[in-house]
Amino acid sequence: MARGLFVVFEGIDACGKSTQARRVAHDRGARFVFEPGDTVLGAQLRGWLLDASTPMSPVTESLMMLADRSHHVATVIEPTLARGTPVVADRFYASTLAYQGYGRGVDMADLQAATDLAIGGCRPAMTVLIDIDVDTANERRARSAEDRFESADAAFHDRVREGYLEMAARDHARWFVVDGRATIDEVAAVIDERLGALDW
Amino acid sequence: MARGLFVVFEGIDACGKSTQARRVAHDRGARFVFEPGDTVLGAQLRGWLLDASTPMSPVTESLMMLADRSHHVATVIEPTLARGTPVVADRFYASTLAYQGYGRGVDMADLQAATDLAIGGCRPAMTVLIDIDVDTANERRARSAEDRFESADAAFHDRVREGYLEMAARDHARWFVVDGRATIDEVAAVIDERLGALDW
Repeated sequence: MARGLFVVFEGIDACGKSTQARRVAHDRGARFVFEPGDTVLGAQLRGWLLDASTPMSPVTESLMMLADRSHHVATVIEPTLARGTPVVADRFYASTLAYQGYGRGVDMADLQAATDLAIGGCRPAMTVLIDIDVDTANERRARSAEDRFESADAAFHDRVREGYLEMAARDHARWFVVDGRATIDEVAAVIDERLGALDW
Repeated sequence: MARGLFVVFEGIDACGKSTQARRVAHDRGARFVFEPGDTVLGAQLRGWLLDASTPMSPVTESLMMLADRSHHVATVIEPTLARGTPVVADRFYASTLAYQGYGRGVDMADLQAATDLAIGGCRPAMTVLIDIDVDTANERRARSAEDRFESADAAFHDRVREGYLEMAARDHARWFVVDGRATIDEVAAVIDERLGALDW
């Protein structure tokens, strides 16, 4: 049986990636997954990670994220792909590099190696980066409650955004950048055109 | 103020390292610490790690251990050393390399990088390896309940032991190997002679 296609949606908070990822998964009969926190173990880790009252270093945060990811890959993503079902993920390894590496300054070489350890050979065929500027993100986020990541400053989110754009620029074959400031339907049309070229 | 000395005790289960580490910490006015599970976060992680009913891959296990270690270093070990108080640890980074790397076959280069990430610059001045053969360990362990690590087979523990001996052989200046089959008092005397040469 052919292995399922693995597509990941990335971007800063409020870029619209969850909406698009869920829509694409639904339209293509793919399993929708998210990180962090999509397993029983992961839900516990997510609780701590998003609790701003628990002081935790950027490195500890990274390693918790990677433990969650490793468990997610082994128990959910890989078994689903192996059955021939496509998987659409809301965040994957690039989130750790963008947020903890570019954003919080964790050593990038060690972080990359730790990320490789966590995901093994499980790499997405395509990562869709929904790019919006931090001002637009702030306007959208004003509607929802703040958590650990959302309470960080604008400079932090700028670094995260730049990190995403750098990663996308280095690998045009497996990254696709879409302007997230357009309407949901406009963004969807651009994404569908690009993803339609993949062998689902 | 001079930084406190950091000494680590390592070895396979039932080698006697906890007994010796506690004794040395008491005798030298050092803070005794242990891994995994010496923080509030770590205690939760330890609960999962030692619960044989939670299936977890060797990589996930490694990353959970490293998250615990990173938090331990940042919130306990480094602040204590910075105050000038010595720290004596029951297990540290070498346990992850021995158990998950040598023992369970996790990729050693990635594991080493992830370990470096977790501990930052926090390296022990001396690691005391209390070495016993697996048969002796088994006899001693027959008295206590089994957990995830202790239920693994003899070949696994042999690999862990060999891993420890390899690490010690590569760095004579910062590792000290003592034969753990002798009596507690005999082992203590050998350890005290070696540690007495350090600048506490």
